[in-house]
Amino acid sequence: MALKLFSSVHDIQDINALTASALALKQNPYGFQHLGKNKTIALVFLNPSLRTRMSTQKAALNLGMNVMVLNMDKEGWALEFQDNVIMNGSSVEHIREAAAVLGQYADIIGVRSFPGLKDRNEDYSETIFNKFVQYCGVPVVSLESATRHPLQSLADLVTIQELKTVAKPKVVLTWAPHVKPLPQAVPNSFAEWMCKADVDFTIAHPKGFELCEDFTKGASITNNQDEALANADFIYVKNWSAYEPYGKVLPGNEGWMLTHKKLEITNQAKVMHCLPVRRDLELSAEILDSSSSIVTHQAANRVWAAQAVLKMMLEG
Amino acid sequence: MALKLFSSVHDIQDINALTASALALKQNPYGFQHLGKNKTIALVFLNPSLRTRMSTQKAALNLGMNVMVLNMDKEGWALEFQDNVIMNGSSVEHIREAAAVLGQYADIIGVRSFPGLKDRNEDYSETIFNKFVQYCGVPVVSLESATRHPLQSLADLVTIQELKTVAKPKVVLTWAPHVKPLPQAVPNSFAEWMCKADVDFTIAHPKGFELCEDFTKGASITNNQDEALANADFIYVKNWSAYEPYGKVLPGNEGWMLTHKKLEITNQAKVMHCLPVRRDLELSAEILDSSSSIVTHQAANRVWAAQAVLKMMLEG
Amino acid sequence: MALKLFSSVHDIQDINALTASALALKQNPYGFQHLGKNKTIALVFLNPSLRTRMSTQKAALNLGMNVMVLNMDKEGWALEFQDNVIMNGSSVEHIREAAAVLGQYADIIGVRSFPGLKDRNEDYSETIFNKFVQYCGVPVVSLESATRHPLQSLADLVTIQELKTVAKPKVVLTWAPHVKPLPQAVPNSFAEWMCKADVDFTIAHPKGFELCEDFTKGASITNNQDEALANADFIYVKNWSAYEPYGKVLPGNEGWMLTHKKLEITNQAKVMHCLPVRRDLELSAEILDSSSSIVTHQAANRVWAAQAVLKMMLEG
Repeated sequence: MALKLFSSVHDIQDINALTASALALKQNPYGFQHLGKNKTIALVFLNPSLRTRMSTQKAALNLGMNVMVLNMDKEGWALEFQDNVIMNGSSVEHIREAAAVLGQYADIIGVRSFPGLKDRNEDYSETIFNKFVQYCGVPVVSLESATRHPLQSLADLVTIQELKTVAKPKVVLTWAPHVKPLPQAVPNSFAEWMCKADVDFTIAHPKGFELCEDFTKGASITNNQDEALANADFIYVKNWSAYEPYGKVLPGNEGWMLTHKKLEITNQAKVMHCLPVRRDLELSAEILDSSSSIVTHQAANRVWAAQAVLKMMLEG
Repeated sequence: MALKLFSSVHDIQDINALTASALALKQNPYGFQHLGKNKTIALVFLNPSLRTRMSTQKAALNLGMNVMVLNMDKEGWALEFQDNVIMNGSSVEHIREAAAVLGQYADIIGVRSFPGLKDRNEDYSETIFNKFVQYCGVPVVSLESATRHPLQSLADLVTIQELKTVAKPKVVLTWAPHVKPLPQAVPNSFAEWMCKADVDFTIAHPKGFELCEDFTKGASITNNQDEALANADFIYVKNWSAYEPYGKVLPGNEGWMLTHKKLEITNQAKVMHCLPVRRDLELSAEILDSSSSIVTHQAANRVWAAQAVLKMMLEG
Repeated sequence: MALKLFSSVHDIQDINALTASALALKQNPYGFQHLGKNKTIALVFLNPSLRTRMSTQKAALNLGMNVMVLNMDKEGWALEFQDNVIMNGSSVEHIREAAAVLGQYADIIGVRSFPGLKDRNEDYSETIFNKFVQYCGVPVVSLESATRHPLQSLADLVTIQELKTVAKPKVVLTWAPHVKPLPQAVPNSFAEWMCKADVDFTIAHPKGFELCEDFTKGASITNNQDEALANADFIYVKNWSAYEPYGKVLPGNEGWMLTHKKLEITNQAKVMHCLPVRRDLELSAEILDSSSSIVTHQAANRVWAAQAVLKMMLEG
């Protein structure tokens, strides 16, 4: 049966088969252009995007699809997401109409919508993304929602599968410093994918940066970064803001930035990051510029991850 | 002979044939891709757009065309439309050059340009749209100009033809409340299309919201909404600002918002709106969420309206 | 061997062969679509663009390529170009990562990046453009960099070759008045292309507007506009800000605007401008609206110039 929704790992029955499909597409990018002929994907952005924007376009083009990009916030109309409001303020169009209409023009819709980081319940209820899904009537791919970034996570898993040198590698997600409050979507999503993958998965973060437990069941969690890094095969570096108090940058913890020195206790670990990355704040330039870094390789795999998902949606 | 301009109903000899063409394309979207091969449409936006932007792209892609979208105001240069001015202010490029150049890169140009709603003569002379037409040298499709929105009106007629249950339905355009001054383009354009169509057409609005008579010849016009709604088959809900004093929002008239209660005196009328619509201000949520509303169906027909027009331009 | 970089005239071995290729493509636009099949160009804009944006898209589409446009400043992330900085300010992503990633999604990258006009060394070192080239790992086309606009210059040469009526025409680049400080990229680039072409090339400008000598070797340079215009076959009108003091608009010199009267001493010269042009400030409306002006023809040739360059990149 064709895939109707790609919003989290829970939408995928067999993540190993999907990963294998992505790696097969990497070897044969143009073999399925009949699937996308006369099919259109609309990529709807409510926030900035570089990798997701370009890699998903590329994936769709590889499959022979037409692509229409809509920067909703700049090119369309200000959206209203609340029900039962008299729309006499600044919002011009309700998501009920906007999504329903977009669903008339596209066979698949991709949606990016970041969290506000003000109201945890609102963000974690995924109101915006879910209303797109609810009202558009066509398959939807998350291009990063308030609490998850599944195309990123799939590309991460593809990268680990592709580059691992042991059957069950040790994968460590380690918190990194930042000056601004960032969403929890990438670490949440990475965690829930890793918890279902054939890896030994550890999360390391300073006290106060606990992730929501819904995403980390099965992971080893520690506040000791050194302990986590010991014998690691892959290190995923990422900042996130606090879950409690929600969306806050807590002071201190600058020492958590990964350096070459810290890599010494790993198993010649490969260093990952979803990008964009702030050099010498989140991650040291010395690592980014070294052969330990696989961040570009990881970003390149975004194409094959997206293409595998779109292929599943077009099939069936 | 191929169509060279689509700016109003007056550019079309036989609106019934065009409507039939749109409905035929709805059944056979991809049958004319040879027409668009190696042809390019440039969609030039001086204002936001969702439906027009996406549906016209889709229509062009269905016809096998290449599409280039230009948000002129954000991606290009600030345009000058006045002649005989020394350009030492903020405008960077004159429409004479910009349009002429765009005409070198595209086989068809679509242009969206809203009215300023400050100077009625300026808006109703359609300076911006007409200068694009005058200087670009290729066929032009209006994507909504200062005083008309013909692709919308054609889609509206297509929708009425498709869904009518009597030979000559009663169609009512009824003014709706709003908090901001909106253009008269949609009601003007809908009126002039309906006045040429095989329908019984009535316009209802509060005193002070008279439309320009050039667009309403042949329509029944009343200030009594109930009288208009009686036995209506289709109700087109739309706000517009006053023509005299030009561009103003006159106070009062909140009671003109359409509700289920008001529909009781209609002939189980289908309710239309061009969208975006402000819920519970212009049109009640109870209607929008009910089977009386055909606004999504109407928006979907924007594709086939645009495709019928582009097909006429490519032929011949 | 395939072309890997198009940043200046120095990247081209035989400018006459490239010009001939452009004119051949003008006669046969769609004959090389096999070259671009399943190839993607990413057009990355850090600044506004109309002609370059549209003509390069058109050129790529003519060659059968897929096109992805990225307005980096609006749709992506604020870029950092300096090395060895702790990125704790407003820039979100370093060019090292951004370029490397873009190179994974595109077979060719086009980049537009204007100068800041504050720091001459920084602009003339072409930091931004060169870092894209250095880190992206795929062929790069300049869509105008801080100090050069080679696709424009190639189109200019194509236009002169196409329309010249004598074997070795006299070509004059003449400075024009403006109210804002403009880059030197177009005059620099035009000068270095003309100095290598089979033309008699003269540059005329008021005192204080000397161009950097690296670009003008071999040109006749004068501060006497009349002397320059005498017997000219082509006149290229363009404003630029001062090189010393860098980026300044020096007062006076309004008399340098080209008029019909001034054309009398030319050899019925054809008047060129790269556009956008400010009417009656840089160039008189009377000339722009006369048959002396070939600015639209020149802009149209941007397609064939870009297509010839992209074809060279795809071949080999």
